[in-house]
Amino acid sequence: MPVPSPVLYPPFNIVRLSHVEYAVADLDASKAFYADLLGLQVTHEGNDRIYLRALEERGHHCIALVKSQTPGVYVLGFKLFDEPDLDKAAAFFEAKGLPVDWVERPFMGRTLRTRDPWGIPLEFYVKMDRLEPIHQHYKLYHGVRPLRIDHFNMFSSNVDEAVNFYNEMGFRTTEYTDDQKTGRIWAAWMHRKGGVHDVAFTNGLGPRLHHTAFWVPNPLCIIDLLDIMSTTGYLDNIERGPGRHGISNAFFLYVLDPDGNRIEIYNSDYQTVDPDLEPIRWDLKDPQRQTLWGAPAPRSWFEHGSLFEGATTAESDLKSQPIIAP
Amino acid sequence: MPVPSPVLYPPFNIVRLSHVEYAVADLDASKAFYADLLGLQVTHEGNDRIYLRALEERGHHCIALVKSQTPGVYVLGFKLFDEPDLDKAAAFFEAKGLPVDWVERPFMGRTLRTRDPWGIPLEFYVKMDRLEPIHQHYKLYHGVRPLRIDHFNMFSSNVDEAVNFYNEMGFRTTEYTDDQKTGRIWAAWMHRKGGVHDVAFTNGLGPRLHHTAFWVPNPLCIIDLLDIMSTTGYLDNIERGPGRHGISNAFFLYVLDPDGNRIEIYNSDYQTVDPDLEPIRWDLKDPQRQTLWGAPAPRSWFEHGSLFEGATTAESDLKSQPIIAP
Amino acid sequence: MPVPSPVLYPPFNIVRLSHVEYAVADLDASKAFYADLLGLQVTHEGNDRIYLRALEERGHHCIALVKSQTPGVYVLGFKLFDEPDLDKAAAFFEAKGLPVDWVERPFMGRTLRTRDPWGIPLEFYVKMDRLEPIHQHYKLYHGVRPLRIDHFNMFSSNVDEAVNFYNEMGFRTTEYTDDQKTGRIWAAWMHRKGGVHDVAFTNGLGPRLHHTAFWVPNPLCIIDLLDIMSTTGYLDNIERGPGRHGISNAFFLYVLDPDGNRIEIYNSDYQTVDPDLEPIRWDLKDPQRQTLWGAPAPRSWFEHGSLFEGATTAESDLKSQPIIAP
Amino acid sequence: MPVPSPVLYPPFNIVRLSHVEYAVADLDASKAFYADLLGLQVTHEGNDRIYLRALEERGHHCIALVKSQTPGVYVLGFKLFDEPDLDKAAAFFEAKGLPVDWVERPFMGRTLRTRDPWGIPLEFYVKMDRLEPIHQHYKLYHGVRPLRIDHFNMFSSNVDEAVNFYNEMGFRTTEYTDDQKTGRIWAAWMHRKGGVHDVAFTNGLGPRLHHTAFWVPNPLCIIDLLDIMSTTGYLDNIERGPGRHGISNAFFLYVLDPDGNRIEIYNSDYQTVDPDLEPIRWDLKDPQRQTLWGAPAPRSWFEHGSLFEGATTAESDLKSQPIIAP
Repeated sequence: MPVPSPVLYPPFNIVRLSHVEYAVADLDASKAFYADLLGLQVTHEGNDRIYLRALEERGHHCIALVKSQTPGVYVLGFKLFDEPDLDKAAAFFEAKGLPVDWVERPFMGRTLRTRDPWGIPLEFYVKMDRLEPIHQHYKLYHGVRPLRIDHFNMFSSNVDEAVNFYNEMGFRTTEYTDDQKTGRIWAAWMHRKGGVHDVAFTNGLGPRLHHTAFWVPNPLCIIDLLDIMSTTGYLDNIERGPGRHGISNAFFLYVLDPDGNRIEIYNSDYQTVDPDLEPIRWDLKDPQRQTLWGAPAPRSWFEHGSLFEGATTAESDLKSQPIIAP
Repeated sequence: MPVPSPVLYPPFNIVRLSHVEYAVADLDASKAFYADLLGLQVTHEGNDRIYLRALEERGHHCIALVKSQTPGVYVLGFKLFDEPDLDKAAAFFEAKGLPVDWVERPFMGRTLRTRDPWGIPLEFYVKMDRLEPIHQHYKLYHGVRPLRIDHFNMFSSNVDEAVNFYNEMGFRTTEYTDDQKTGRIWAAWMHRKGGVHDVAFTNGLGPRLHHTAFWVPNPLCIIDLLDIMSTTGYLDNIERGPGRHGISNAFFLYVLDPDGNRIEIYNSDYQTVDPDLEPIRWDLKDPQRQTLWGAPAPRSWFEHGSLFEGATTAESDLKSQPIIAP
Repeated sequence: MPVPSPVLYPPFNIVRLSHVEYAVADLDASKAFYADLLGLQVTHEGNDRIYLRALEERGHHCIALVKSQTPGVYVLGFKLFDEPDLDKAAAFFEAKGLPVDWVERPFMGRTLRTRDPWGIPLEFYVKMDRLEPIHQHYKLYHGVRPLRIDHFNMFSSNVDEAVNFYNEMGFRTTEYTDDQKTGRIWAAWMHRKGGVHDVAFTNGLGPRLHHTAFWVPNPLCIIDLLDIMSTTGYLDNIERGPGRHGISNAFFLYVLDPDGNRIEIYNSDYQTVDPDLEPIRWDLKDPQRQTLWGAPAPRSWFEHGSLFEGATTAESDLKSQPIIAP
Repeated sequence: MPVPSPVLYPPFNIVRLSHVEYAVADLDASKAFYADLLGLQVTHEGNDRIYLRALEERGHHCIALVKSQTPGVYVLGFKLFDEPDLDKAAAFFEAKGLPVDWVERPFMGRTLRTRDPWGIPLEFYVKMDRLEPIHQHYKLYHGVRPLRIDHFNMFSSNVDEAVNFYNEMGFRTTEYTDDQKTGRIWAAWMHRKGGVHDVAFTNGLGPRLHHTAFWVPNPLCIIDLLDIMSTTGYLDNIERGPGRHGISNAFFLYVLDPDGNRIEIYNSDYQTVDPDLEPIRWDLKDPQRQTLWGAPAPRSWFEHGSLFEGATTAESDLKSQPIIAP
């Protein structure tokens, strides 16, 4: 099955992915990981939560860490273009029979909380506190020099349907893997902001968050992070990489935070703003789609994911492939 | 004077700058410069013209070189979102009393030719021939490894008015320099595609094209180009750099093509998709806005520009500043 | 057992490793690999042999490829300081009862051919044809941009004795792995030229050549090579990496030539000219000595090696360790 | 006049340049510059002095900062190979009628203090306290990531004679500039440790120290330093660069410490261990010898230098060239 045609005039205008909220067991350990090790900048620190931004971001936060007994993912946040888009979004989800709640969020304006059909908690907003630029405060750059949040990647038990749903919301597919035998989509990368993706879906036990990615300036930053992690007690938090993905063409590294949430460090995909950009198809049997250079991913990379708070996971029925295949 | 508020719902939807057409005296010399030296890829070669694209582009061309007795710039091309945008654009320019012509262009669909109020020749289209991706054909990468066309920078004899006009078309200002004494804008950077700019305007004898820029993956590509140019007979074509601009934060190099057209090699600006992104103001007296590291630009950089075919230049009345100031 | 004390006044003065001669099955395939892919420069091409140098070398060659039915390694070549050193070297090997032959070699002056006690064919010389510098002919740089030959790494069936023998010749140990249980040396890195090594020995079926290494300017060159190899039919020639060795601190990649000879691409070890530089000891149980970042090497990397012409291999008696340990 | 032939068997064996001692007005300001900004590591801090080393060095220090009313350079330090070399060095200087003093230096063994014929204070030693390796303590890397001291560059009022004197001590010339008109050497680069130079001499008001250089891993470190300096109050301390020297092929940056001492950040010269390496000649009229890419050095770079304590400066008689020429 080919990917659906892009919806040029979606029901509401999503600008980009914006932020993620993780429930974490140990706030100090998480701060050490995200601020001291990766180099994200703390913008607010409270008793039970910490907010951080990346170095070129002016929105208040791209990641919130909330102390909790049960780890998991509370929110995937998206920025909308204009206030009317918020009401159009509410109407869209209501019409689908999905929950619509207007919630209070610190540092943010009017916020719509809902879930996608598989229970992934989504929040949409237009206004978030704006902070002074720090991208030229070069003294602050350290760790992997994260510039901005780049994308969310999710396990889905039905990628075909997930792609249809997010396509309807205006996400445009840039690359995808399909299974010639079944005619079904195995994985897809979909964007709003003009890169390869804001969201991606991979076949597996879903819904779970596979990873959140941060954009860095060049591959040497990733080498720096590997050198630091491997000599400061974070060796076991390195999961996969460095390498280049065939899909997206990105130079990547995957690391695990203290709660086991997977973070991708990501560099050098390409510009996708053309609305007639043709999606690139990859065959499920082509191992270079995952690693252009051939090295296989470890088993954990295919199996491990973070649970979404309040969502129930379900196995995919698309099981014909060996675990190594996704 | 502050920059005008962004127009969130412009009269027609410009996706991005797309291509430039230069009249060149010696097609072989120009091909040697753009293809062999810089590393752009030839997509069509005729008797009197050559088309090239950068390595991650799938549109047929980002630069056309046309043999001519009189050097100059024939076209600044922009891609529109959808077919109706073409008609809306025609209506917009007609209402302003500006020329509207539907022209035939090879490798392109319906094309609208017009001029801005100062005579800059603009062309808008939706469809251009799409080519196979080559961004993973790594054997092709050489020279400075140009990935995509990034922006046009123009001398303007009235930056205030130019900014207003392009703002009305939907370009959003990301950074600008103003002159506190006169309250006028000295220079402005304006985007559509989510980077710091698709177009920029600088005070001076206008309208002239200051430069066309290409995006490259990292600063080492720029160092490579300098090493190659300085040892293969192109030493005198190096004009300015390498350095980092305060404005845009980009790592840059300026070189001159065989006809004297200025090309910027550009890397590492930042993402600007947020519609509420606050423009960054720079003071005309701050030398770091031009070169963060302090080295002054050569005089030629402030004085030399390319003429637009069919446009008449006029001095700016904003002359209070020394030439070194722009 | 600790490594032996450095011999400050060795019997003859070796400047550095110099060149390797491989017997290859298909000269065209080998040329495509070393010249077109890696970027070494051909300095002589005959019917049955090709000579190449790296980009900052002025000696005539660092690698010779000789057409042959039986693949293998003909020569490991070393440059001596001065003519009298050649005679002193001859006396040294004669006194050990090792073969001493004065051979004719194209592009080289007086050449002494001998073997180490395990049969490794060694050649020593003082004069080799000197060529014009090309390190600033930047147009020539491509592939992985090899600057110079860096070292030989050999499997040895008795590393303790190999280290003693090469130590006697003036090679100074910079790093080594020992096995606390047996008190024996598992592997050692030894230099003459002021880097981490000119030669290294690893426990295993010896004598065999594990790899020859070339020095490149920075890690991005290695990423470039991976991108090119994986998209031009050389995917299966990528064996291990990229990564950082704990030992030597080098950023590395291992690739296989068309005959299966292993080539290391190597960057960023450190200066070792101090004669009192303390060797760094690594424990055989520390997996970071091999890969600082933790990723294990593939099995082939521990098992596969190139045979030396005229030498007979023997298993090591140091077998207490799992294959993954070396 | 060609450069003198290398002395293969010098009167004593110098391993490498080792350290410099600067008299500084404000110890805190100097520490901020060398440790916090550049990233050298403090190894001892006393009331009136600070010692630092670079990241791959195991000797106790490569730079000593001593509080003083009168700024200047107290010592250029060199490491000798073995204890007998110290006595041979003493004999060498005595025979020349130059001062020979055995001095006490903290953290060092037997130390010989002398002066070259123009009064430059030189110190030679064999033993300096050895420290634990820190080159894999990646958490420590910051600033420009200095790996090791690389060379001293001195103004000389008679380069011909300086080259002869240092050549006699065993320094081998790798590159030089001569003046075809007068037949005299304008500048020369001479090494012991296997890089382009340990010492260099340039025609001018001598003896003065033009600069001390530190080696860094790659050009991006230099870009990082420029970004940091220009945004933390050190903009005026940036003097020249970044650029590539024709001579030495190094990628460079020159900055000034708080007392005006010039520091070069240096990367990517080449290996020079071959005793028969032919010196590369540059013509005084070739501007690319200074900057391969053509940008001229600022006037200060030709005029400003640091005084050696106890030495008297004298103008060169080699004045036929414009100041921009050196």
